[in-house]
Amino acid sequence: MSDTKSRATGRRGRNARREARQHRGSSSIPYIVRNIPVSNLASDEALEIIEANADQILEEIGISFIDDPESLQLWKEAGADVKEQRVHFPKGLCRELLKTAPSEFTQHARNPSRNVQIGGNNTVFAPVYGPPFVASLDNGRHYGTLEDFQNFVKLAYMAPSMHHSGGTLCEPVDLPVNKRHFDMVYSHIKYSDKPFMGSVTAPERAQDSVDMASLVFGDDFVQNNCVMLNLINANSPMTFDATMLGALKVYAANNQAAVVSPFILSGAMSPVSPAGTLAQLLAEAMAGMALTQLIKPGTPVVFGTFVSSISMQSGAPTFGTPESLLVLNGAAQLARRLNLPFRSGGSFTASKLPDAQAAYESAQTIQMTLTSGVNFVLHAAGWLEGGLCTSYEKFVMDMDQCSMMEVLAKGIAHDENAQAMDALREVGPGGHFLGCEHTQRNFETAFYRSKLSDNNSVEQWEADGSKDMAVRANALWKQMLNDYEAPAIDPAIDESLIDFMDRRKRSFPDSNV
Amino acid sequence: MSDTKSRATGRRGRNARREARQHRGSSSIPYIVRNIPVSNLASDEALEIIEANADQILEEIGISFIDDPESLQLWKEAGADVKEQRVHFPKGLCRELLKTAPSEFTQHARNPSRNVQIGGNNTVFAPVYGPPFVASLDNGRHYGTLEDFQNFVKLAYMAPSMHHSGGTLCEPVDLPVNKRHFDMVYSHIKYSDKPFMGSVTAPERAQDSVDMASLVFGDDFVQNNCVMLNLINANSPMTFDATMLGALKVYAANNQAAVVSPFILSGAMSPVSPAGTLAQLLAEAMAGMALTQLIKPGTPVVFGTFVSSISMQSGAPTFGTPESLLVLNGAAQLARRLNLPFRSGGSFTASKLPDAQAAYESAQTIQMTLTSGVNFVLHAAGWLEGGLCTSYEKFVMDMDQCSMMEVLAKGIAHDENAQAMDALREVGPGGHFLGCEHTQRNFETAFYRSKLSDNNSVEQWEADGSKDMAVRANALWKQMLNDYEAPAIDPAIDESLIDFMDRRKRSFPDSNV
Repeated sequence: MSDTKSRATGRRGRNARREARQHRGSSSIPYIVRNIPVSNLASDEALEIIEANADQILEEIGISFIDDPESLQLWKEAGADVKEQRVHFPKGLCRELLKTAPSEFTQHARNPSRNVQIGGNNTVFAPVYGPPFVASLDNGRHYGTLEDFQNFVKLAYMAPSMHHSGGTLCEPVDLPVNKRHFDMVYSHIKYSDKPFMGSVTAPERAQDSVDMASLVFGDDFVQNNCVMLNLINANSPMTFDATMLGALKVYAANNQAAVVSPFILSGAMSPVSPAGTLAQLLAEAMAGMALTQLIKPGTPVVFGTFVSSISMQSGAPTFGTPESLLVLNGAAQLARRLNLPFRSGGSFTASKLPDAQAAYESAQTIQMTLTSGVNFVLHAAGWLEGGLCTSYEKFVMDMDQCSMMEVLAKGIAHDENAQAMDALREVGPGGHFLGCEHTQRNFETAFYRSKLSDNNSVEQWEADGSKDMAVRANALWKQMLNDYEAPAIDPAIDESLIDFMDRRKRSFPDSNV
Repeated sequence: MSDTKSRATGRRGRNARREARQHRGSSSIPYIVRNIPVSNLASDEALEIIEANADQILEEIGISFIDDPESLQLWKEAGADVKEQRVHFPKGLCRELLKTAPSEFTQHARNPSRNVQIGGNNTVFAPVYGPPFVASLDNGRHYGTLEDFQNFVKLAYMAPSMHHSGGTLCEPVDLPVNKRHFDMVYSHIKYSDKPFMGSVTAPERAQDSVDMASLVFGDDFVQNNCVMLNLINANSPMTFDATMLGALKVYAANNQAAVVSPFILSGAMSPVSPAGTLAQLLAEAMAGMALTQLIKPGTPVVFGTFVSSISMQSGAPTFGTPESLLVLNGAAQLARRLNLPFRSGGSFTASKLPDAQAAYESAQTIQMTLTSGVNFVLHAAGWLEGGLCTSYEKFVMDMDQCSMMEVLAKGIAHDENAQAMDALREVGPGGHFLGCEHTQRNFETAFYRSKLSDNNSVEQWEADGSKDMAVRANALWKQMLNDYEAPAIDPAIDESLIDFMDRRKRSFPDSNV
């Protein structure tokens, strides 16, 4: 399975050079290159203990690979100790295997100017993934439809701070479960030209995603470049199931990046302590990521983390909590120590409304996400109700916050213009800076301008209808959808995608599993 | 004016030792001792340039001290070049003077177990300061009254995350301007036993504050220990006015800490660029703080910063913006490089409601406040409408966020219990952690429990009345006021305070200036 490795490496080298050329002199790139240092909240001592514990978990407790003999066989061949479905890893095996994984890679978009760089100092924001429900102030909460899905593709396309089209923006529940992946992948390609994610709910759906991407990018290109990220959740604690392993194997074999993400609600699926949770998720992520390298050494892979806690009273998931922020930051440090790209973060909340709770919890998470140096940020916009619901209003509210994070990531410029000594000399004690030459010169770019914050006087705000932020957000997303214009697509490619979908859809009966 | 210096230093040494004894073995201290590293977003190179520019401002442009011949005379005697009301500082003069200021000091509360440590790795949260208006869901927006003021003293007393009673929690507009400081200081003393702030709106009101504190703590104690923080705003750009200088001189002479705070809306009162703003505020803060050391070498002083930006469209102040976060973080770094305590931060918003805007903006600011290592956080709870309004609901919402910041500040524990290897071994792959021995053992303290976040299912939330966070906050502050019990106060002290106020109030006519 590694026959394309040297070609792939060569391609990656050329791509890196092309990438560098494209960025040179470019005034804007379609993702964040952080110019501020990462925040490392855990001490080296704590991280070394956590790593030793993860190694201990891998060796002593082991990780279960359920109903997937092929994975177990691969692990046996790699020298692991396989007992029934549980794999025990000799010390250092996973780390050794992970040395072939790239520390940074390009995910290609069908519009090359929207390619994103996953890893390093880069941060890529992608929308919420997975909610079965959708909500808006107009229609309340209801099951998602394909129309909703396409609306969110369009909103992400319109949002400068969404660098990525994401994946399951909501479940299009009006389509059969076993066929909706076609329409989701097609919608990402048709209504956006940003990078996107493939289907992971069954191996054949993963293969369909690869086949559709191949129609867009060409077979050879797909086999040698990353054109899809793919969300592979561990079934924590310490388990990977056949569905996720099936998708992981398809994507790894086709050179597409798995985002191997322990999905953890601490207290239920991991210990109640951040250090215990981190050891477990590191063990899980290392085992899952190492498997991709067994399948195809050099295939890109991302260290993913989804961690929150549960309420110890009710068992309900909680979000934006300090413990989850500590785990997020610690996991980012662990990923950097493995020299691998890291996915986490988002704009999480347990709130049922785009209210203050939603905003507090989301802002707490998104700022920590940025300062922790997360590379791929899933759920950056739209998440509501513990991930059960994609909210139109929350989507654009979060989008605005993500734009602010872009500015924060630039840090403090200190060139001559930024020093503004001319302004200080011109204005002097007791003066006013609004009219000075420096202010006029920097007027357009001086401060981030929120589309949603109301900074007016209370009198003006009342005259404007006393609207809260959610009401203003309602107007904004409608305006964005109204202004939406689809990016051009080669009609021959579009036709080939539609033909492929029609043919495949007709080849097996509808089903809701 | 420095005759008490050696005694003060001796006292401070003894106090530090007493402080250390008190903390040993204590399970809770009444402020945050950060166990996570500070986040330094600006490079040393940038900071060195900013410092050089601040020195240049001090020397070349100078700082105006308006209508205060005594300050000008002090500067002349110290070797500064005074031209009319503008002081030009020889290079290094302010830095040299600041060497006598303590890097960390204790502010005493009338209940010693509530003393707070200002500086170092410590963070102290205090409520909003200054709004003329008050708002609640019940009564809407109205001018503040003494009853409101006292309610907020009680709420801050009840809130574990408010380490400080603050100052002008709202303006008690029902009292004459020239006498309301008596009732504010008295209310802080009577209805709370946490540390508080003195009046700064006129030198004689500052003296009244000192006199009232002396009735509580004793004359000698006050002259040798800090029992009040006092907010001295620079009138930016590069100006101190007579009112603030008058209060500063009274407090410095009486060994009470001035929080010298450039109050800046970037774009109006400073350049539009963070680096330019930082140079200006450093120059202003150094000049104001150095003056305290001219008055009484060794008197405690705090490097304060209040910075936000204005909307370049409307001129309205904006909050929680990325530029203001960068300035906050950079100013914290500058204060550390001066080895002085730092005040900034808060839960700022321009919103008129406790809605998503209020929460996004406040959360963005408070997390950056904590990770930047701010020592004294004014406006940590209750701020609404650009500081024009104290909100009951926002007060308790912010209080909840501040509690979360306390947990974040603890960082990731990595002792044996935190490592939880026993739990991982007990549960194993595919298991559930809720019932394991480790979870049971840590059940009570495992996760922060928000009083205001609703994490329930949508069905349960609907059954509970579909309340947003503001509505839940409305119930919480009422419950807190209902549960409030005043801390004990020595009746003789109480009587002496009332006598003092009555006498002083009768000695001059009411006035609203």
